Amino acid sequence: MKIIQPDEGEIFDIELDVDILRRNRELADENRRILDEHDIVAVDVMGSVAAGKTSLIVQLTRLLKGKHRIAAFAGDTTTTIDAELIEEAGADVLEINTGKECHLDANLVRKALQSIDLDQFDVLLIENVGNIICPADFPLGSHKRLVVISLTDGPYVVMKHPFVFQDAEVAVINKVDLAQATGISPDKLETQLLEVKPSLKVVRMNSLTGEGAARLASALDL
Amino acid sequence: MKIIQPDEGEIFDIELDVDILRRNRELADENRRILDEHDIVAVDVMGSVAAGKTSLIVQLTRLLKGKHRIAAFAGDTTTTIDAELIEEAGADVLEINTGKECHLDANLVRKALQSIDLDQFDVLLIENVGNIICPADFPLGSHKRLVVISLTDGPYVVMKHPFVFQDAEVAVINKVDLAQATGISPDKLETQLLEVKPSLKVVRMNSLTGEGAARLASALDL
Repeated sequence: MKIIQPDEGEIFDIELDVDILRRNRELADENRRILDEHDIVAVDVMGSVAAGKTSLIVQLTRLLKGKHRIAAFAGDTTTTIDAELIEEAGADVLEINTGKECHLDANLVRKALQSIDLDQFDVLLIENVGNIICPADFPLGSHKRLVVISLTDGPYVVMKHPFVFQDAEVAVINKVDLAQATGISPDKLETQLLEVKPSLKVVRMNSLTGEGAARLASALDL
Repeated sequence: MKIIQPDEGEIFDIELDVDILRRNRELADENRRILDEHDIVAVDVMGSVAAGKTSLIVQLTRLLKGKHRIAAFAGDTTTTIDAELIEEAGADVLEINTGKECHLDANLVRKALQSIDLDQFDVLLIENVGNIICPADFPLGSHKRLVVISLTDGPYVVMKHPFVFQDAEVAVINKVDLAQATGISPDKLETQLLEVKPSLKVVRMNSLTGEGAARLASALDL
């Protein structure tokens, strides 16, 4: 087997990235200052298609809405499906449609922060676009980054995508009810996660039933 | 619910994209000419994390290796896991590690084409990186684009990601054995696929057992 690893500049996007990433990081720092000024704790939720980002946010909202005033930003390429589900659960939702973009960025989040009354909220849950490659490079200014993987993401999801976990504080292993149907071991995934980042807090969950939501809230200090 | 839709230029990447996409398209056309000169039929396989791209290519390779000489390009961010599985099945594999990039592009594929003896093959199977947002914008020069979705991609995968299907000729609904465990209906997904693109050829498959592989080969004219 031969392996090709492109040199710098050979991937079309790569030379442009340095400036974009620096500018994004500056804006993320600004977002963090704005959030801190208003005593809002923000969590950025990343995960692949159907990992369970929306239902996890729905469960957190149901659990915490008596304790915190919750805002949510729902990032999605084209639809409002997720935003509607989160709104039903009791959060104030702002939908961010990214069109063809594969990730939120700090600029979009800043625009969203300017669109809500920040004094009305204590917690902000941000749902990123559904994949675990692009969002990793774009911090948004949140206090914690959370990655959701699901047993249906298969046995190699952690090994193939280490970067997204290295920047996260909490990882959720979701759909633990499907261990038998998928033949995927939650134990193995947890071991792999902790190899990538030993300080990661790992929570097992079934985001459809809400099992594990209280443990997740605790891991997020919410 | 409020909705934010960024204006052009508000997403960091977007202004750069026009030139990049044009250049990619030119290189894709060149790749196509190179493939045609050597009588190679190329298929580009896209799908989210764990949709089953690798096992689908493995099944196609097992089925067709007596009839065609098969080369495969395995695109992956960091690992050679997929490439090894495809090689075991009987294809000549070239691994393309993209690092942090979320898609293959025509430039990487051209480099890969220059790295193999094109007179030794009739069929080229190209596995893209695992997500269904970024690869859609980057044609590679293949003759057919194939998108794999899985029942574990959930009920909204087609509605949320219409672009990737519009550019494809064939879609696979994979892991049909998990209909009961996931509660997802293959019929509904097929209806949604045909709404997005009525001319799409839709094949149901279980890529672990190989069920549906012959129908897929027929849909791809292989």
